[in-house]
Amino acid sequence: MNNFTFYSPTKFVFGRDAESRTGELAKSFGATKVLIVYGGGSIVRSGLLARVEASLEAAGIAYVELPGVQPNPIDTKVREGIELGRKEGIDFILPVGGGSPIDTAKAIAVGIPYEGDFWDFYLGKAEPAAAVPVATVLTIPAAGSEGSGDSVITQKDGMNKLAIGTELLRPKFSIMNPEITFTLPASQTGYGITDMIAHILERYFTNTPNVEVTDRVAEGLIMSIMNEAPKVFANPEDYDARANIMWAGTIAHNGLCGVGREEDWITHSMEHEVSAWDDKIAHGAGLAVLFPAWMTYMAEHNPGKVAQLGERVFGITPGGDPKETALQAAKCLRAFFNSIGMPSTLREFGIQESDIDGLVAKFHKNNGEIIENRYLTITPEVSKAIYTIAL
Amino acid sequence: MNNFTFYSPTKFVFGRDAESRTGELAKSFGATKVLIVYGGGSIVRSGLLARVEASLEAAGIAYVELPGVQPNPIDTKVREGIELGRKEGIDFILPVGGGSPIDTAKAIAVGIPYEGDFWDFYLGKAEPAAAVPVATVLTIPAAGSEGSGDSVITQKDGMNKLAIGTELLRPKFSIMNPEITFTLPASQTGYGITDMIAHILERYFTNTPNVEVTDRVAEGLIMSIMNEAPKVFANPEDYDARANIMWAGTIAHNGLCGVGREEDWITHSMEHEVSAWDDKIAHGAGLAVLFPAWMTYMAEHNPGKVAQLGERVFGITPGGDPKETALQAAKCLRAFFNSIGMPSTLREFGIQESDIDGLVAKFHKNNGEIIENRYLTITPEVSKAIYTIAL
Repeated sequence: MNNFTFYSPTKFVFGRDAESRTGELAKSFGATKVLIVYGGGSIVRSGLLARVEASLEAAGIAYVELPGVQPNPIDTKVREGIELGRKEGIDFILPVGGGSPIDTAKAIAVGIPYEGDFWDFYLGKAEPAAAVPVATVLTIPAAGSEGSGDSVITQKDGMNKLAIGTELLRPKFSIMNPEITFTLPASQTGYGITDMIAHILERYFTNTPNVEVTDRVAEGLIMSIMNEAPKVFANPEDYDARANIMWAGTIAHNGLCGVGREEDWITHSMEHEVSAWDDKIAHGAGLAVLFPAWMTYMAEHNPGKVAQLGERVFGITPGGDPKETALQAAKCLRAFFNSIGMPSTLREFGIQESDIDGLVAKFHKNNGEIIENRYLTITPEVSKAIYTIAL
Repeated sequence: MNNFTFYSPTKFVFGRDAESRTGELAKSFGATKVLIVYGGGSIVRSGLLARVEASLEAAGIAYVELPGVQPNPIDTKVREGIELGRKEGIDFILPVGGGSPIDTAKAIAVGIPYEGDFWDFYLGKAEPAAAVPVATVLTIPAAGSEGSGDSVITQKDGMNKLAIGTELLRPKFSIMNPEITFTLPASQTGYGITDMIAHILERYFTNTPNVEVTDRVAEGLIMSIMNEAPKVFANPEDYDARANIMWAGTIAHNGLCGVGREEDWITHSMEHEVSAWDDKIAHGAGLAVLFPAWMTYMAEHNPGKVAQLGERVFGITPGGDPKETALQAAKCLRAFFNSIGMPSTLREFGIQESDIDGLVAKFHKNNGEIIENRYLTITPEVSKAIYTIAL
């Protein structure tokens, strides 16, 4: 087991009507004027925004709104928020929504106190030294951003999708009411479930030996998500199933599943090129296609942890040939993703064999020619083979 | 799933040589003069205390020492610490040790800013409103106090063992170096492992339905502890096994295994009477005797979750008679505890059938005649039956 620091100081307030505590919680963390960041009109139509604002008003907290954050959130919206926040003198940022408003809010949070352009942080040109405090009201269980210090933003010109991670951006609190997720479309529910499983697997697939506690927690989370998912699709208003999925999405990405080991994240990086190829491709859909393909390749080249997943999570008889068990595990995961409406192949997105070389080139341009210190070293030959399996 | 708040803002710094970061971390949390609280001479002999103090000195932090905390820590030592801390004007408390120094440090932390006697908090006569910040250097994985806001103190006159829990007392940081646990005696290692499994089970045995995520995390932790325990006994210097056990002990008690449901804690309360009967009986040893007895009783009266544990953790074939599966689970748990050197019966402590009525009377005097809202309502008939099974 490797040395590690685990620090997850977000206060999670979870359950029915949790949003009514927004004002009280914001006040306890020192907010006096809040920038509310959100996407489309769904939180307006559902009345959630009005309830959050009523709670802030009851606590004597002023607020201004930044609506219009889009999926795959972009840098221009961040700059708009930084300008608005500075002009209005806000001292707290409250995204209400899923990963896109939350990641936008985090970018605004480090951007406001910074003299240069916030994109410097995403390019690695500068390190954030300060941030306006952020808290969240979560509406889509998927990205795990409500419990992480991470933010992913896309540059509008050039479609560069870049990430930062800093402890400064861990939300002070996150409000999670599973009832708010009752009305999520099935597709979005499926993308979210896929994304959270992927967040666990990116941490699970490691060559660091003897991380049994972290392994078992990760395996247990995946089993619980797979147990609850069919209930959510059978009855979108199954409170307990929605609640389990929502909480699993948070623990999947707050760091607990990664402590003590190297993490992988190759599949996420490969997926970013697929979403960038056509921004109508949902991140979750791309992951559902690529993760079983990655596992299939690993069955041949480094089957150990893939086979362990097969035995412990998918109930494949222990002690068999690791390669065969790993291949079977990849099939089981694909079958699960299909059962929640996810695609199986890149062709379903319109990607052809002739597009693969372009994906490989862009992937290595963004991540380096030879990517080491991962579950397997990734050369252009390897990434091409994985994209090809995914065809 | 019930509504919940989960807030675990302790920074865990884990790994080899972690104690060398004590000064830097204490400084980052504002310490200028530290009260170091510890027990016997083992941390002096091992050089740990010197390394911690060197780290504080390097960071320019002053310190005073409060040695001599005993197992089952007592109120008089707390008062000594409060007096010393006030006189010396300390602004930070750093226990170096296991649960006893940590719990003592927490009591001192709420006692220093309080005008009355600190024992008021433990009697429920007053609520702590402020606390001196606490951080820990952990040497014994067991109590989980390094990640909790709990403290248990025994009143020297009368042997009342009482607890408080407040978010004010969550450690700011906890330093966990598994190498420090290499020299723990086998008995202490076994008591600690038993205690952490008990912390998980007290939260696992609940009537709150549909808490699948929390169940699976709890089951995974127990499986990992049972996997690593034999390695620690076979080779006390197995770093990875020690590391897994140490980290498991923290997650077992930081609240994660309890979110979204009622908890039980009857077995812990029943054990307190056993330790109080003879304070040479270790808490872990008492738990090892009582938990399988409690489960055996529940097999007859509320087998559901006991049987689930049997199927998922002990690998008992699913779908059998719940009572039989639950009985089998109790036997498996007892066999595991025996395998790490724990006793099976109260008689091994010298307790006789004629002592049972006294244990029952004291247990109900401290916890109420009829204890409701637990996995099973506990009347004197029930507690007597459980103590009798444990004989």
